[in-house]
Amino acid sequence: MAVQATVPVRDAADLSLAYTPGVAKVCSAIAEQPELVDDYTWKSQVVAVVTDGSAVLGLGDIGPEASLPVMEGKAILFKQFGGVDAVPIALDTQDTDEIVDTVVRLAPSFGGVNLEDISAPRCFEIEARLKEKLSVPVFHDDQHGTAIVTLAALRNAAKLSGRALGELRAVISGAGAAGVAIARILVEAGIGDVAVCDRKGIVSQDRGDLTEIKRELAGFTNKAGRTGSLESALEGADVFIGVSGGTVPEEAVATMAKDSFIFAMANPNPEIHPDVARKYASVVATGRSDYPNQINNVLAFPGIFAGALQVRATDITEGMKLAAAEALAAVVADELSADKVIPSPFDERVAPAVTSAVAAAARAEGVARR
Amino acid sequence: MAVQATVPVRDAADLSLAYTPGVAKVCSAIAEQPELVDDYTWKSQVVAVVTDGSAVLGLGDIGPEASLPVMEGKAILFKQFGGVDAVPIALDTQDTDEIVDTVVRLAPSFGGVNLEDISAPRCFEIEARLKEKLSVPVFHDDQHGTAIVTLAALRNAAKLSGRALGELRAVISGAGAAGVAIARILVEAGIGDVAVCDRKGIVSQDRGDLTEIKRELAGFTNKAGRTGSLESALEGADVFIGVSGGTVPEEAVATMAKDSFIFAMANPNPEIHPDVARKYASVVATGRSDYPNQINNVLAFPGIFAGALQVRATDITEGMKLAAAEALAAVVADELSADKVIPSPFDERVAPAVTSAVAAAARAEGVARR
Repeated sequence: MAVQATVPVRDAADLSLAYTPGVAKVCSAIAEQPELVDDYTWKSQVVAVVTDGSAVLGLGDIGPEASLPVMEGKAILFKQFGGVDAVPIALDTQDTDEIVDTVVRLAPSFGGVNLEDISAPRCFEIEARLKEKLSVPVFHDDQHGTAIVTLAALRNAAKLSGRALGELRAVISGAGAAGVAIARILVEAGIGDVAVCDRKGIVSQDRGDLTEIKRELAGFTNKAGRTGSLESALEGADVFIGVSGGTVPEEAVATMAKDSFIFAMANPNPEIHPDVARKYASVVATGRSDYPNQINNVLAFPGIFAGALQVRATDITEGMKLAAAEALAAVVADELSADKVIPSPFDERVAPAVTSAVAAAARAEGVARR
Repeated sequence: MAVQATVPVRDAADLSLAYTPGVAKVCSAIAEQPELVDDYTWKSQVVAVVTDGSAVLGLGDIGPEASLPVMEGKAILFKQFGGVDAVPIALDTQDTDEIVDTVVRLAPSFGGVNLEDISAPRCFEIEARLKEKLSVPVFHDDQHGTAIVTLAALRNAAKLSGRALGELRAVISGAGAAGVAIARILVEAGIGDVAVCDRKGIVSQDRGDLTEIKRELAGFTNKAGRTGSLESALEGADVFIGVSGGTVPEEAVATMAKDSFIFAMANPNPEIHPDVARKYASVVATGRSDYPNQINNVLAFPGIFAGALQVRATDITEGMKLAAAEALAAVVADELSADKVIPSPFDERVAPAVTSAVAAAARAEGVARR
C-alpha cells in the first residue's frame, strides 16, 4: 500500500497553501472550532487498524511485525470495498492497560479504530474500555464482523426454510471473540435459544470454572439450562455455528433436527466437512472461498466503517450492527437458494447497502454527528 | 491525502492472496525471519510524523487535532519530494514519558519517526530517548532539518566570499529546538566560533540560570567566553542566524563585520528585514518564499528519510546530517550568487542528491542494514 497526495504541490503557490504559511490558517481555524478537523484533514475518513499480534488468523501469538501483512491486507480491503482509508498499527505491547492508553493517545489522528487479531479475553476489555473513552467508532472485527455476517446468513437460511428466528435453537462451538459476539447478536436478533460450548462443554450457570465473560454469556444464553458436552447440545438443535477450529463427529451431526443449518467456519478445516454437513443440513456455510456461502468479514467491515464515518458517528451501536446484518441479508433476498444465503464478497451491491443502513441506524440511535 | 492500494483485489483469487488464506504464509515467513517485514510490508517505506501539538509553527500549543493540517501537509511533501509514505500521528499527551512509550509501542509499524512541532526542551529528551530505544531512524525536523539547510546555505555563502568556515564567527538568536541544533551542526562543521543568545543574552558558562540543554550548549559554543547582550555579540560577527522571532535593531546590524551573512529566518517577520540586511550583508537569507535564499526544511527531510530508508538505516547520525548539508550545497555549487546560496524547493536535483549522500553516509557510518 502507499500514501497518495490528493492535492498537487507543483510550485511555490501550491507549497505555501499545502504547507507554510497557508497551513497556519487551517490550524488556527481548528484550534478555534475543533470540529472543523473533520472537514479540513483526513481524520474523518481514516481508520486505525490496531493489533497487538496476539491472535493472528489461526497462527496465534506471532507478535506485531509478523501480524502487519494482515493489517495491511485489511487496509487494502477497507479502501477497495468501502472507500475508507486505513493505516496498519501493530503495537509492541500485549498489556491491556498499555494498549488502551496507546490507542487513546492516537485517537486525535483517526476517525475510527478497528481492533484486529487481539486474543480473548483481553479483546473484550480493550474494546469496552476504548468505546467508553473515545468519541469515535471502535469495532473489534473478529467479534462483530463475524457476528454480523453470520446473522445475515442465518436470517436468509431461516427465510428460505420458512421458519422464524424465534423458533430456532442454535449451538455455537467456540467461546472466544467470535463465539461470544455471535451469541450476543443472535440473542439480540431474537433467536429462540443459543448454547455456547467451550472445550469443557456447554457454558452454563452451574459451572464453577467460568471466566468473567463466560459467566456473562451464561447469563443471557442457554435459557433451557442445558449442561454437558457439545455433542449433547447438538441433539435436536436447528443450527450449528463453528468458530472453534475443533471437529464434530458425524454421529453428533446426525442427531441435529431435520432441515438444520450448519455454519462450520474454521479455516482452513471446517469443524464439519461440507460434504458431511450436506447429508444432514439444508443450508451449509463455511469460511472458505471454494465452497458456497462463505462467511467473510469483508462483507461487513468496509460498509460498517464507511457508514459510521459518513455520518461521523461517535460509536458503533448494537442497533447499527443489527441494521448491517439486515441490509447484508437483504442484498440477496430475491435470489435466495441453499447455496446463496449470503452475497459474494465481490457483489457490488453489498458495501453501499451496508453503508447506508449503518448510517441510517446511527442517525436513528442518536450517535450521528451529521 | 489518501491511502492507495498498490495491488488489485478484483476476484476471489486476488482476495485469497491479499487477505486470507494467502496472507497467513506471509505472516508465518516474517514470524520465522523477522527482517522479512521490510520486504513483505510497507513498514520499510513509511514514516510516522509524530507531534503532540505543543509548538505548532508560530502558533504555539494548539493541541493535537489543530496540528493535524501541518502533519498532513508534511506527509504530502514527504511523498512528493522524497517518494516516502508518511502518516500523521498527533498524540493526545504532552507528557515526555508517555510520548516516548507511545512511539516505542508504535515502532513495529513504521520504518522511521519524524518528530514535529514538539516544544523545547522536551523535544531534546524525547528525541534522545527514542534514538536510544528504537532501531529505526528518528529525526526531529524542527531541529535538524533547519540545521542542515542552514549549514548548506552557510557553506555556499562562505565559498562565494572566498572564506573558510573556520574563519567565521556566528551569532545565533534563539536557543530553542532550531537554535540548539544549528549551533551543534555549525560546530561539527568546523565554524570558527558560535555564540547562541536567548532572551537574556549570550548563553555562557558563567550564567546561573541555564537549563540543562543550555548548560550543554555553553560547553561547546562561545569559545571566546563572551557575555552580555545579543547586540554586544553581534559586534564584529560574520554571521547572524535568527530563529527566535525577535527583532534586531539596525544599529546592532551595522556593527557586524564587513561582508557579513544574515540569515533571518523568523516567519512571517524576519528578525532583520531583508532590505535592511542587504545594506550591511553580502548574503541574505530568510524563511520566506518571496525573497531569495529561502531556508526551507523541505530541502532536507524528504531526502534524509528517503536515503535512510533506502539502506534501511538504524539511525540518522551526525555524519548523515553533515553529508546531507554538503550534498544540498553542492547542488548549486556551479551557479552560486548572492541570491542563490541554496536551491529552490522545486529544484528536482535536490532530493536525489540528498538521498544518495545520506545513503552513502549511512553505509560509511555502519548504520545501514543493506
